[in-house]
Amino acid sequence: MSNPLHHELKKEFQLERLILFSDAVFAIAITLLVIEIKIPEIHTDVSDKALLHELKHLIPKFVGFIISFLFIGLYWTIHHRMFGYVTSYDKTLLRLNLFFLFFIALLPFSTGFYSEYAGTELYEKELKVPMTFYTLNFATAGFIVYLMWRHIGNPAKKLAEPMIDEGVLKMAKIRSLLVPVVFLVMLLTAYFFTVAVAVYIPLLLPLIMKIIMRRMKKKYPHSFNA
Amino acid sequence: MSNPLHHELKKEFQLERLILFSDAVFAIAITLLVIEIKIPEIHTDVSDKALLHELKHLIPKFVGFIISFLFIGLYWTIHHRMFGYVTSYDKTLLRLNLFFLFFIALLPFSTGFYSEYAGTELYEKELKVPMTFYTLNFATAGFIVYLMWRHIGNPAKKLAEPMIDEGVLKMAKIRSLLVPVVFLVMLLTAYFFTVAVAVYIPLLLPLIMKIIMRRMKKKYPHSFNA
Amino acid sequence: MSNPLHHELKKEFQLERLILFSDAVFAIAITLLVIEIKIPEIHTDVSDKALLHELKHLIPKFVGFIISFLFIGLYWTIHHRMFGYVTSYDKTLLRLNLFFLFFIALLPFSTGFYSEYAGTELYEKELKVPMTFYTLNFATAGFIVYLMWRHIGNPAKKLAEPMIDEGVLKMAKIRSLLVPVVFLVMLLTAYFFTVAVAVYIPLLLPLIMKIIMRRMKKKYPHSFNA
Amino acid sequence: MSNPLHHELKKEFQLERLILFSDAVFAIAITLLVIEIKIPEIHTDVSDKALLHELKHLIPKFVGFIISFLFIGLYWTIHHRMFGYVTSYDKTLLRLNLFFLFFIALLPFSTGFYSEYAGTELYEKELKVPMTFYTLNFATAGFIVYLMWRHIGNPAKKLAEPMIDEGVLKMAKIRSLLVPVVFLVMLLTAYFFTVAVAVYIPLLLPLIMKIIMRRMKKKYPHSFNA
Repeated sequence: MSNPLHHELKKEFQLERLILFSDAVFAIAITLLVIEIKIPEIHTDVSDKALLHELKHLIPKFVGFIISFLFIGLYWTIHHRMFGYVTSYDKTLLRLNLFFLFFIALLPFSTGFYSEYAGTELYEKELKVPMTFYTLNFATAGFIVYLMWRHIGNPAKKLAEPMIDEGVLKMAKIRSLLVPVVFLVMLLTAYFFTVAVAVYIPLLLPLIMKIIMRRMKKKYPHSFNA
Repeated sequence: MSNPLHHELKKEFQLERLILFSDAVFAIAITLLVIEIKIPEIHTDVSDKALLHELKHLIPKFVGFIISFLFIGLYWTIHHRMFGYVTSYDKTLLRLNLFFLFFIALLPFSTGFYSEYAGTELYEKELKVPMTFYTLNFATAGFIVYLMWRHIGNPAKKLAEPMIDEGVLKMAKIRSLLVPVVFLVMLLTAYFFTVAVAVYIPLLLPLIMKIIMRRMKKKYPHSFNA
Repeated sequence: MSNPLHHELKKEFQLERLILFSDAVFAIAITLLVIEIKIPEIHTDVSDKALLHELKHLIPKFVGFIISFLFIGLYWTIHHRMFGYVTSYDKTLLRLNLFFLFFIALLPFSTGFYSEYAGTELYEKELKVPMTFYTLNFATAGFIVYLMWRHIGNPAKKLAEPMIDEGVLKMAKIRSLLVPVVFLVMLLTAYFFTVAVAVYIPLLLPLIMKIIMRRMKKKYPHSFNA
Repeated sequence: MSNPLHHELKKEFQLERLILFSDAVFAIAITLLVIEIKIPEIHTDVSDKALLHELKHLIPKFVGFIISFLFIGLYWTIHHRMFGYVTSYDKTLLRLNLFFLFFIALLPFSTGFYSEYAGTELYEKELKVPMTFYTLNFATAGFIVYLMWRHIGNPAKKLAEPMIDEGVLKMAKIRSLLVPVVFLVMLLTAYFFTVAVAVYIPLLLPLIMKIIMRRMKKKYPHSFNA
């Protein structure tokens, strides 16, 4: 094997290693989510009715599990798409990626904390601490995604060759900023208005996304054919 | 490295990443199963007899562990065979796969819940809730496998090239539907007849499989030589 | 990319996937070992002396952790060397491998169970149940390794090409049988003689290995040059 | 595929397998860190104030989580850079690597133990046991990194080809020895002087690193252009 080709392959393997390491963290975080759901234990008068009653109490935990699974899945999909463009790496990308993985690794805790106090009786108490912790976790992860897009999209860094299409890059940046923005609006609503309204604000996300997408398609007609 | 080849390799690595991410989730779920089996703790009068007694109580947990290990192993084998045909991916495949992994990640909980209440004294109480939860988990996973076979087997999607042999594909689809069907029959038997009979119904699975296989071999003689 | 090369690469990736899936199970099992060691919790009169006292009680757990880490590391090394020869796979290899991984995934439990009852005061009670559980786990894993060597070493199966050197294969088979044999001798000693002697029997392993290796080197001089 | 190329590819895959196995252990250890942080559970009078109070008690745990995440991330980065040079492996490298992974796998325990007793009221008690355990863990890992650099940097072993640049290798060796040295100075300060000063000693690390780096740049001007 000639030396330059070997060096090229080695460099590519180093990048793949960075990616597969990230995948392992994603996979572990997504699988650990379920560990926080404790199996209902009844020791006296076990019956279907009692077990169903116990399962009912676990519903907020399951909802939290599903939402976090969806979000980690979404972040993995974004990471997957992003690194589809990356052909090289530098120290900054390595650090941003580790920083991002930190908030992914924190998610099983945040999810468990939030869903522990997300039962109906607790909404009435207007609890804001668990929601703040949970949304800040997701918002920060989203913001680091934005920083990563900005870094790899910078042609001077030579991390993505051929260069990422301008429209695709702009859309990716807007999208990654949108999640933190919507979550912050949700938090502000919770603090200054009411938790009961705040929790529905993330549902606006797909709607806002569609409006932006339509505008982007007009501005960059060649970028979004697929 | 020329651009089109590089692009081809990059696309292939993206597919491999999807597969290895799935493998990591499988590996974690299969290894976490055992975490739900708590080590017997005796603090007074420790003796071989007392420890054996404690181990005996763990037998339903071990049976649950073994069955779930077998099923996750089976699903991994199916996933392994299925992606042996896949040469490309689209958004739908990515989503179906994540959806499938959700039910794999849920299995350590379902297994723990089912085997917590699968001791002999509980069969007498005709408990249906843990069994329902457990079988619905497996049946849904099986049904998503069916959807994935249908999606990648669709020639219009160009996800598997060369095209999967018609007989092989049909057999794969039937097989993936069979698991949910048999589990649903088991559930119906449990609800309308008795749990004690229901638990033996999955044992019919290999028999039904053999009958179908013999018919398929007659219909598609060229597909099943190996 | 031409079709036959693509097919060849795909088959190779399928084998790699089997291997990397096994690695993930190894990695998780080896890292989960430590989870069974609970952090000492003192709530009143915290002092260095009290913490040291608590750590002392954890010594059997640490010894168990170290021994199991060494053994999982050893099995990984064997698996690594074995699959260095493998160039193809069949259903039997897939199943033997899954069966082997089952006993690797069980090791964190076995280790935790054994080391929970391996303190000095318990040796006096001649406890045999935890030791039996632990050694049977390792012995079975070792025996499956033997079955795998026999399967891939069978030239008719065409799983390892070029064929594995006869001397190397024989040595690998003997070595993989030796572990279960020594562990069974240890168990018999514990049951019919005394636990206090039995625990030292595995220490004979390196000695026996050396004697066999010397004989093999005489018989197959060309196989063990490296 | 011709045999020598196939053999070359196989050998390369064997090395990749060693690396990806290490990555999996890194990924699991880094994600398990958070498991030691238990979700605050309040059962009566749940309120934001009470939850904040509980979170405050978790601050040392979070600090421990962040520090260990940074260190595991750093060790992964070093491992990543080191194996960027490695083109072959031998038994010694395999063993050193497993030995290194042992101390990585131990880190979730060490971190949990240290941060359990790192609250402000405990500094006043001059607790040294948790800090000793924690720093010895990191120092040993750092020392094994030094041994690995020495082994792969030895041209006689033919593990890194082309040979690693002399300046780069010397810098890597010094850096890997510096971490254990600084941690040992910290321990000595804690034992013979006071814990309250000792904890700030690791902050000198970046400063010392910069001074050494400046000297190295003068001595090996060609090695540190990038």
